[in-house]
Amino acid sequence: MQSITTSTYAVHFNQRAYDALNVHLSNKAYSKIFILVDENTHEHCLPSFMGQIQGDYNFEIIEIESGEENKNIDTCTGVWEALSELDGDRKSLVINLGGGVLTDLGGFVASTFKRGIDFINIPTTLLSMVDASVGGKTGVDLGPLKNQIGVINQPEMVLIVTSFLKTLEERQLRSGFAEMLKHGLIQNKAYWEALKEVTNFLYIDDLIYDSVVIKNEVVLQDPTEQHLRKILNYGHTLGHAIESYFLESKTHKTLLHGEAIGIGMILEAYLSKELLGLSDTELADIKSTFLSLYEKVSFSKEDITTILSLLKFDKKNSHGNINFVLISAIGKPDIDIIIPDELYENAFAYYAEQ
Amino acid sequence: MQSITTSTYAVHFNQRAYDALNVHLSNKAYSKIFILVDENTHEHCLPSFMGQIQGDYNFEIIEIESGEENKNIDTCTGVWEALSELDGDRKSLVINLGGGVLTDLGGFVASTFKRGIDFINIPTTLLSMVDASVGGKTGVDLGPLKNQIGVINQPEMVLIVTSFLKTLEERQLRSGFAEMLKHGLIQNKAYWEALKEVTNFLYIDDLIYDSVVIKNEVVLQDPTEQHLRKILNYGHTLGHAIESYFLESKTHKTLLHGEAIGIGMILEAYLSKELLGLSDTELADIKSTFLSLYEKVSFSKEDITTILSLLKFDKKNSHGNINFVLISAIGKPDIDIIIPDELYENAFAYYAEQ
Repeated sequence: MQSITTSTYAVHFNQRAYDALNVHLSNKAYSKIFILVDENTHEHCLPSFMGQIQGDYNFEIIEIESGEENKNIDTCTGVWEALSELDGDRKSLVINLGGGVLTDLGGFVASTFKRGIDFINIPTTLLSMVDASVGGKTGVDLGPLKNQIGVINQPEMVLIVTSFLKTLEERQLRSGFAEMLKHGLIQNKAYWEALKEVTNFLYIDDLIYDSVVIKNEVVLQDPTEQHLRKILNYGHTLGHAIESYFLESKTHKTLLHGEAIGIGMILEAYLSKELLGLSDTELADIKSTFLSLYEKVSFSKEDITTILSLLKFDKKNSHGNINFVLISAIGKPDIDIIIPDELYENAFAYYAEQ
Repeated sequence: MQSITTSTYAVHFNQRAYDALNVHLSNKAYSKIFILVDENTHEHCLPSFMGQIQGDYNFEIIEIESGEENKNIDTCTGVWEALSELDGDRKSLVINLGGGVLTDLGGFVASTFKRGIDFINIPTTLLSMVDASVGGKTGVDLGPLKNQIGVINQPEMVLIVTSFLKTLEERQLRSGFAEMLKHGLIQNKAYWEALKEVTNFLYIDDLIYDSVVIKNEVVLQDPTEQHLRKILNYGHTLGHAIESYFLESKTHKTLLHGEAIGIGMILEAYLSKELLGLSDTELADIKSTFLSLYEKVSFSKEDITTILSLLKFDKKNSHGNINFVLISAIGKPDIDIIIPDELYENAFAYYAEQ
């Protein structure tokens, strides 16, 4: 597969990815190379990764605990301290080998260590391949508030090695697939239709490639999220609030990111029908597609009240308004839509109905 | 005084500073304006600052504790949480009203809150006026390692109101004066000579202005510190290590930044004589000037050993080498000098001798 060029770096795929990395390492003469892993990528991805490195470099492995609940400043402090103790300097490199939690956190740690050192992202989950590989967003959560702390900063390169997907559980793959479906909904109906045909998430290299292309085109047109880039938040305004709520809740099981934004996309499709005239047929198509992939969740009245109160912390807000991305048809987004309060409960009711 | 234009923003002085701020606030329509203060600037600077604001804005005051020992990630977390609880959003502004600890920390907090919001710095100490007002360095310490965590990011504007200097103790003013002396040593012998004539630190508005101009000229030529900008580290390589050591030490009293880099500048002048041929006359001039301003400190053998071990954490290092800025004459700097190990003790001995 061809490499994809973003604003400042390239996304390379599979064997080409390792080739590009080997060239980069031999050109750059880093003083030290840190590989950030979690317990899963340490065991399942690091050995095959190391087998592809040509040349003799000064590697140090730093392991963090996996999981969104560890995507916080305390974990960053642990990594900053490890970098200091292992003599990391301004000419060191950090390679982030893991899912979105790890690449977001590792990108933030590298961007702020000694006011910024080079980093390379190697997303190992489907979600992070199609979502975190372009855009330069880095960051961590502050309590229940997702990505509240972070910076926009670009990696030296992103490497997508699709064989890492074999190390994932089916539920993880399914979760990542939700972001690909989102790319269809906001940009390309034909792509949405193609995704609906997928039966095995391990044979979708071309569709992964297309997703990165779609996201890259959006980000290139609006790198600082003034207007067009906001469309990537489709499903995320309510989805993030739902994800945060389930993460903190003692009685609900945790939802994966894709599962939460899948619900968000159904709810926001309902709002799209009410406010932008999305057709009943497309609304029903969206609902049935997500419900065929992701188990339905039940929300009590209290759940809904708390989720709506979390909404006001969403970082896309300004001046107290909550700005939604909605779609007037599949592939046709519109931004900065304000939702009348009484519609939220109807959206949850639509999600719940048979 | 004329405003000074940096790469992306202006440094405004005295009444012109308030005029520029009032225009900025009325143009920008910020959703909320946060003023970050410490207990000193809250009491001594905030009232006169608020008296100069024209118009009716949504202000919130956030107070942190003063002192280098609070320039850490825990304090940042407190401010991030306050911003979240007080409904800070992407269109909010942070005004940092305080010394270098506060403007460095507040700049980092604003640069990382929701991936970066606007901030304005109002340095209230002499040190921060002449040092932190240009260059875009933000950050906090990690344990004893100064400025280990941070980003380069520019404020919307910097306001220098020299009447705030009246709120400072003599020792604080003296400390800030060391950075001005450094600007003379690295760039301009005539400026060095003019500084030596100063008898009252409250009547030096023009010299403050010149210092900002000198620093700005250096930073404009090399914003990312690849080469020329390194000269601003003169005295800081050893000075930082000394400052860190005294901060952590239980038996020594804490040194102010200027006091520590004052010692660093004498030590590095000695190294400059040994390695770059700085003349005996200028070396003696540098030593006697600093010793007339700053009390002499005694270093035990153990102190020196520990200080030298802290050196290796200095962020200017790479590939394990410690790169010094030295001067071949007053006003003539040279960068990336490696010091033979045996010279360090001689430098401390020169500092100690009568």
